[in-house]
Parts: sequence; C-alpha cells; structure tokens
Amino acid sequence: MPDREYPTALGASSLKSITLLGQDLAEDVMGQVSFGELAFWLATQRRPTPGETRVFEAVLAALADHGFTPTAIVTRLTYLSAPDSIQGALAAGLLGGGSRFLGVTEDCGRFLHDVLSTVDGELPADDAGWDALALETVRSAREARKFVPGLGHHVHKEGDPRTPRLFRIAREENLFGPHLSLFEAIGRVHPEVLGKTLPLNGAGVCGAALADLGLPLELLRGFALLARTAGLIGQLAEELRHPVGNDIFLSVDLNNRSVAPDPYDQSDGGRHG
Amino acid sequence: MPDREYPTALGASSLKSITLLGQDLAEDVMGQVSFGELAFWLATQRRPTPGETRVFEAVLAALADHGFTPTAIVTRLTYLSAPDSIQGALAAGLLGGGSRFLGVTEDCGRFLHDVLSTVDGELPADDAGWDALALETVRSAREARKFVPGLGHHVHKEGDPRTPRLFRIAREENLFGPHLSLFEAIGRVHPEVLGKTLPLNGAGVCGAALADLGLPLELLRGFALLARTAGLIGQLAEELRHPVGNDIFLSVDLNNRSVAPDPYDQSDGGRHG
Amino acid sequence: MPDREYPTALGASSLKSITLLGQDLAEDVMGQVSFGELAFWLATQRRPTPGETRVFEAVLAALADHGFTPTAIVTRLTYLSAPDSIQGALAAGLLGGGSRFLGVTEDCGRFLHDVLSTVDGELPADDAGWDALALETVRSAREARKFVPGLGHHVHKEGDPRTPRLFRIAREENLFGPHLSLFEAIGRVHPEVLGKTLPLNGAGVCGAALADLGLPLELLRGFALLARTAGLIGQLAEELRHPVGNDIFLSVDLNNRSVAPDPYDQSDGGRHG
Amino acid sequence: MPDREYPTALGASSLKSITLLGQDLAEDVMGQVSFGELAFWLATQRRPTPGETRVFEAVLAALADHGFTPTAIVTRLTYLSAPDSIQGALAAGLLGGGSRFLGVTEDCGRFLHDVLSTVDGELPADDAGWDALALETVRSAREARKFVPGLGHHVHKEGDPRTPRLFRIAREENLFGPHLSLFEAIGRVHPEVLGKTLPLNGAGVCGAALADLGLPLELLRGFALLARTAGLIGQLAEELRHPVGNDIFLSVDLNNRSVAPDPYDQSDGGRHG
Repeated sequence: MPDREYPTALGASSLKSITLLGQDLAEDVMGQVSFGELAFWLATQRRPTPGETRVFEAVLAALADHGFTPTAIVTRLTYLSAPDSIQGALAAGLLGGGSRFLGVTEDCGRFLHDVLSTVDGELPADDAGWDALALETVRSAREARKFVPGLGHHVHKEGDPRTPRLFRIAREENLFGPHLSLFEAIGRVHPEVLGKTLPLNGAGVCGAALADLGLPLELLRGFALLARTAGLIGQLAEELRHPVGNDIFLSVDLNNRSVAPDPYDQSDGGRHG
Repeated sequence: MPDREYPTALGASSLKSITLLGQDLAEDVMGQVSFGELAFWLATQRRPTPGETRVFEAVLAALADHGFTPTAIVTRLTYLSAPDSIQGALAAGLLGGGSRFLGVTEDCGRFLHDVLSTVDGELPADDAGWDALALETVRSAREARKFVPGLGHHVHKEGDPRTPRLFRIAREENLFGPHLSLFEAIGRVHPEVLGKTLPLNGAGVCGAALADLGLPLELLRGFALLARTAGLIGQLAEELRHPVGNDIFLSVDLNNRSVAPDPYDQSDGGRHG
Repeated sequence: MPDREYPTALGASSLKSITLLGQDLAEDVMGQVSFGELAFWLATQRRPTPGETRVFEAVLAALADHGFTPTAIVTRLTYLSAPDSIQGALAAGLLGGGSRFLGVTEDCGRFLHDVLSTVDGELPADDAGWDALALETVRSAREARKFVPGLGHHVHKEGDPRTPRLFRIAREENLFGPHLSLFEAIGRVHPEVLGKTLPLNGAGVCGAALADLGLPLELLRGFALLARTAGLIGQLAEELRHPVGNDIFLSVDLNNRSVAPDPYDQSDGGRHG
Repeated sequence: MPDREYPTALGASSLKSITLLGQDLAEDVMGQVSFGELAFWLATQRRPTPGETRVFEAVLAALADHGFTPTAIVTRLTYLSAPDSIQGALAAGLLGGGSRFLGVTEDCGRFLHDVLSTVDGELPADDAGWDALALETVRSAREARKFVPGLGHHVHKEGDPRTPRLFRIAREENLFGPHLSLFEAIGRVHPEVLGKTLPLNGAGVCGAALADLGLPLELLRGFALLARTAGLIGQLAEELRHPVGNDIFLSVDLNNRSVAPDPYDQSDGGRHG
C-alpha cells in the first residue's frame, strides 16, 4: 500500500516559509488579522468581513465568562489539585461545555435552522411574516411538549441585556438574517401561546447570530468553548492571585455527612433511595 | 517510503481470534484473570503471582475513593454541566490527579527508589541497617529543606490506618521489599531528626508497595488514576441517585462577591492584591 | 443560609479511621476485596457475589484493550506531546470513549432493556419464547430502518470469540438473565429477517451481561471506560519502552498535502467541497 | 460556620445587568472590545492598549495552528471516536499542550525572566550591553549542559519567519522590552559560544513577547492553548468536511505487528527490551 496523503488547507511549513489558509503566516496574518477574525477564518476557510468579525467577537464576549459557573469551579479545583498542568485545568473546565450549561447556543442555532429548513419557498419578508412563522413554531413546540431553546432565563427574568444588544450590533452590520429574525419574532409572539412572557436569553441569541454568520452548525458549541477558554484563563489568573479553590473544596469536604449505603436496584432505576 | 510497522504485544485481532499479551483473550483471559491481575499484566507484560495481585489490589483499594476530594467534586460538577458525556465527567476528574492530591504515591515511590539507587554495594539486611539509611535520608532531606514524601497527613495525625495494614499484607505475601523497608524505617527514625512524630501516610506507603512490586516508576501515578477511575464511577453513580452537584454549584455561585478588578503587575508577580 | 450538608456513602475519614461504603477500609477492604469487586460495589453500593464479580471481570477483560484503537493512539500521541502529564494522556484517551468506538456496550444494554420494558406480563420462559420476542425486535428495528446495537462486526465477520465465551461464563455463574437471553435469541433469528447472518459482537454482549448484573444502565459506558483505563496504562507502559508515537505523528505530518482553502457554505452543509 | 464568600472581579449577574471586569457586558464590552483584547483583559484585569492588543494577537496568530501536530491528530481521532462530544475532542487536543510541543513559549518566557531577575541594578541600555548579558547567559547554559529554550528549530533551520516579524511588530508598537531584547541578543551572540548558528524559533519569541507585555508567566502556556483552541476548531471544521481521521487510524491499525510480550524489569528501567 502506498503511503496515504493527508490534505489540509491549514498550517504548512517548509524550510523558509509557514503558510496558514494559503496565507503567508508571518507577513499576512501576524499583525494584520485579529484573533477573532482568525478564529472565524480557520473555521470557515474564508476571511470574514469587518462586520462579520464584529458580530462574531460580540458573541464571544457574551459567552466568555459568567462568574462561578460549574466550568469555572472545575478549572479552579483542578488547578488546586494538579497545579503542574495548566492544560489539564483548562481541559477539565471545557469538558463541562455540554448540553446543559453551554449547550443552549448550539441548540438554539440548530432549532432555528431546522425550522427555516422546513419553509417552502421564500422566507418571510416582514415582521408579520416572521410572527406567523414564529407562532407556528412555538405552537408546534408546545404541542410536542418541548421547550423552545433560548426562551427563558433563570436569572434575567425580565430580559437578558445581551439580547437587544446583539440584535442592535447585527443590525448595525447588516447581518440580521433569518435566524435572528425568527428568534426575535419568537420573543414577540410566544406570550400569546404560552400565556406568559419569557426573556430571550443571551446564549440563545448568540446561537442565532452565529447561524446567521453562516458558521457550521455542528461547531456552534465549539465557538462557545473558544469564548470560554478565554474566560477560564481569566478564572485561573484570578485563582493564582486570589485563590478560592481550597475554600470551595473545604466547604464541601467539611460538610460531608456519612450515610449508609443505598443498594442500587435496576428495576426502579435506583430511584427508591 | 515504505509503510511503517507498529509493533505491540497488546491487543490484536484476526478474523477468528483476539489475543492480548500473547494470550487467547476469550479462553485464557476472560473468566480466568481478575481485573487487578490484568491491569498489572498489561502494565508489565508479565503475569503477576497471586501474592503480587493481592498487594496490588490492596493498593488500588486504598486509593480508590476519599469522599469529596477535588477530583470527586469536579466529576460531579462536570456531569451536572454536561450529562451527555460520561467520558467527559470521568476525564475531568482524572485531570486533578496531579502533583498535589494524587502525586504523593508517585513522589514517594520515586524518592525511595532514588535513595536506594545511591546505596553502594548490598542493601541493609536488618532493621538496624535500614534505620541507619533512613536516618541519613531524613537528615539529607532536612538539610536540603525538603519534605520527605509520604511523611505527614493533614487528618490522620496519629497514624494512617492504611499504612500498618499494607505493611502486614506485603509481609503476608513475602513482598516486603527494600522500598517498604526504607519507608518503615523512616517512620521509626524521623522523630530523632525532626523533633516530632509524623504519620507515614497511606498514599505514600502505596507508592512504596508499588515500587516493591517492580512496577514502572513512571506509571505509579497511573495506578493511582486507575484506582480513582473506579472511585469516580462510584461518585457518578451516587450523583445520579442522590445529587449534590447543583447544591455545590449554588453554594459558590450564590455566595460570590463582586469586587473591583485588581490589575496585574508582573514585577511583583501579581502578589500585591 | 445555614451551611449545606453533602451526604455520601463513599469514602469518609476521621482522625483514626477511614471508611468506604460503611466498611473499615484498612481492615475489611484492603487485602480482602478484589479491585473488580470493589468497582462493582462502588457503583451499586452493594457487594457483588463471587459469581457476579467473575462475570463483571470477564466483561472488563473483554473491553480492556483492542490494540491500536483511536483511543490508544490518542494516549500515545498526547504522552509524546506532554510527557509531564500522565493524567492528561489517560484522560485524552478516555475522551474517545464516546458513541462510536466504546458506545456499543451502552447502546446494546439500553436497547435490550428498552425492549424488555415493553413486555407486558411475564418474560419468556424458553428459547421459543425468546425467539419470538427477538423476531419482533429485529423486525421493528428493520422497519424503523435502525440497526440493532451489537449485531455485526467489521473484523470478526464469522463470529466474535468473546460472545460465546461470555455466554458460557454467565451460564456457569447462573447469571444468564433476560438481557443475555434476548441478545442470544437475536443472534439466532436475525438471518430470517435480514437475509444474512451477522455476528453478535463482543462489545454488545458485554452490555447485555452488565445489564443482567443489575448495573445502572446510565453507567454502562463508564465500565467500558474503567476497563479501558487499564488498557491505556498498558499502552503507555509499552510506549515508554517501545515508542511508536513519534513515528505515527511523522507518518501523518510528512504526508500532509497542502491544498487551497475550501470556503464553507452553510446552505449545503459545507458538503460541496 | 458562616457561609464563605467567594470574591471575583469576573462575571457577575443580577436581575437586570451583567458585568464583567467591572464593565457593563452588553453595552461596554459586546461590540466594543475585540476577542483578543478581552482575553488579555481577563488575564490581567487591566485593559490593554491597542498596541498591546496587536502584539498579543500577533502571538496568538503565530501559535494557532501548525498543521498535523500531535494535538491536531488527537482532536481529529477523538472526534472520529466520539463525534457526540465536541468538547471532548477539543479538550483531548489541548491535553497535548504540555512540555514538549507547546511548552517552548512558556519555557522561553520564564527562562528570560529568570535571567533578567538576576541582573543587579539597571538593565542594559544598548545592543552591546544586551550582547554581554546574552553571552553570559548562553555560556552558563552551556556549562550547565542545558539548552537555551527557543534556540533551534527542527524545520526552519535557517530562520523561523515568525521571529523577525514579531520583533518588527513589537518595535512598531514600542513594546520591544527586555525579554525580547535579551532573546534577540542571544540570537546574535550564541554562535560565538556554540560554534554554530541556530534559529530563534517562533514559539520562543512568542514567550518573550508575552513576557514583555507583562502577562503572568505562570499562564504563558495558557495563551498558547487559547491560540490552539482556535486552531483545533479549524481542524475539526476541516475534519467534518474532508475527513482524514479514519485513514490515520487505519494507517496505524492495519500496520500493527504483533510481537511477544517483553516483561518489564524495574532494575534496568525496562530498557533491555
């Protein structure tokens, strides 16, 4: 068998040059391309416009850090336990970026995309059209007893400040596309169906904005993780100087209460305990 | 370039058979070899004796779980945040298996091994001989202002119950070798040098026992991680039925106190804050 | 708010004692309980019988190592790149324990359990009864255009040697329960529906056996990961002495072929490239 | 015990507002602060100047992706094996960010910083002064039989194009400080000591530049990991559309050669094999 070849448009090196995405890394990327722009370019293999970069970076800012989330606590505790491995502390934190805490961005982007894919013919051209589609969307979700991803927030019950802000930025850059339009309309019409007003949350609107930027839906969670990497470095930097990890650990360990084993019984899913 | 070849004595498959370490996996390993025995065999490519397996499994039992350690909390919080990925929750917990919390086993085994390597000629043949070597060892460490790994414990100040027990098991199996002998002697003589009596801790004695089993020193931490994997599965199983992860998260998040930024100054290592 | 309490039946320490699952760790666990037995006990909070331990350890042996799987390669490459962090190399390998390569065990156990849950009244009492249920099961899967998890193997096309062996061990220990019975019957009847004979694969039968042991279905993947941790330590031990990681890396890097960027277009899912 | 408090200057939320580093996240960060700028700010709790941001982002660009590195291969193989967990694939790749492949940046920054810390009185004011310090530095390293981190490159033997480029960018922004000055001088004088001319590598110069930006030395590896996260997302995006992971896996698995076990002997460190 002849040796395989592995094609890539990403980094390549030779004796004298380094290229990335077909560009001369040293001359055309370093000092010329911002980090957000580069991240977008790497993910899509096309250079974003300045407007696209601005919306993308606004999303990254919105998702970078939310204080003492489970992922932040995990990074601090892992650093406490294994200070020799910064990569381990960051990786451990990112592993919390799953369905529950970081997943809304991806779920919301995919949900909106799926709805848009079912539209026969033209997409709506005005608010009334989007409202009609949104109404149908919320009704279907309710009938299927499903939540609409991105609708509701456990803290910002009267509105998540990131949402109108991202709408505004996307409009300023002429990047307010169908995903954001549908999401905004869901915000307008859902009370009619659900009988109460829920906020459009910031993680959700980020998913809509990323989808409108044409980014791969399979990787929306990846962008949330990129943003979070910067946030976790911030958490580590603060932990190095003003540590709380050991206090968190002790607050749990010293308050443990030893109880008798509760043998597992598969037949009831172990839920009798 | 011709294709490379990758030699391995581990798993190999063909149409009709599966071998592992040169054995027929189905007939000669499954149902015949205990899991601890297999783990030892995989790491050394030699089958342990029943006595070696017993000491090895006693070490794994000693290290499997210590309640709400940082690694246990990390696994529970990662599961809370990303319940779709059991592998992520376990991996995150293992990433805390670094220098501070799980490292004593490795550090102690290596330390003892290094001391033994410096002995010219025969190793001591009796307690008096070991005591002399131990005395020199503790004195050198003190002069170099270094700790002796495995000496001292923050909870079991009057003695870690795992230590005498592992000494006894190793003696029963005729596997009380030079690492354990030196460690035991350090326990006898250190008060003479340090002026106080410290316990020989259980993580340390495990390192001594693993070294006496002839296991690779570079992997002592690996065995601690194997033991801990079983413990973390126990933590996850308990979390599934009697969850505390969300309470831990809230106990931190609800008690956050927002403070002003403290700009970092490299010249003082950021420590003025 | 008063301090929370965190109940646990797992490890607990006081000045003089350490308990685990309500046992005295030093006296009643170390030297008395094998590692496989302990892992089972930790996951279920009940001590397994010797027969249960034997089946459980046979499953762990079946899943421990399959040679150069993606997870094994990942562990070796991560060690190559970050030799300072054994925990990182093991964690990285475990992260491949997801839906495709290690998932069959979990998928198969859950699938069988779901089928059994739909049976009204008594479960079948003889082979004819199991065959009827299996026939219905395979037909439903085929109609829904779904695969039956555990049916088929890309190498062992004429039969996976682990499968009859695990059947035999389970029968010897009187632990051949409904999950194994249904799985075995699927092996007998599926040619009638699918028109060809597929092997019952070893990862699948492990899922069936673990389910018959009454282990939590949510954690079946966890047991595969525990087995794999031992295997990955074996991979690392071999890599330390007979390294192939750098050759693998070079076989890819030296055969890279630089291609032009292929800009992503969301509207076709990026698949035009 | 009263509840602990956990101070943080990072993210904080209340019913109507979200702050980050004391800023209003929606109004003052989103749409106003680039992602690179934000990452710097999070790590130092001070807002960088535009010049600092440009140097910082040039460093991130230099480190983002180098084609088929072990970390890139690991991310692709982990995705192959567990496509359900993007976070796992990214985390696995980052775990290779250790001492060998990504460590040069940190090692070089720390090395230069340590040398500068030993200088009594004023730092050199001209090239001649830096050359003298560099000469002493290279000589000491040679006498101690140590490598100078950042000196030498296995591909770019005649010069790494990133190095002069980053020097230039730092000069343009008036951020060419003592770490870069010393590193540049090492490039000038080392042939005199070593008898051959080695290139100053790009990962090393990045460490010098980050140190001159006043970033925490403990986190230099963290910034390399942040850059690499963007690169790994690029690798995943390419893998989704033009997969090579399975070919890499097969190139190893199909070329495995089964060999006899080689029993480990601790006394020779297992190296007889």
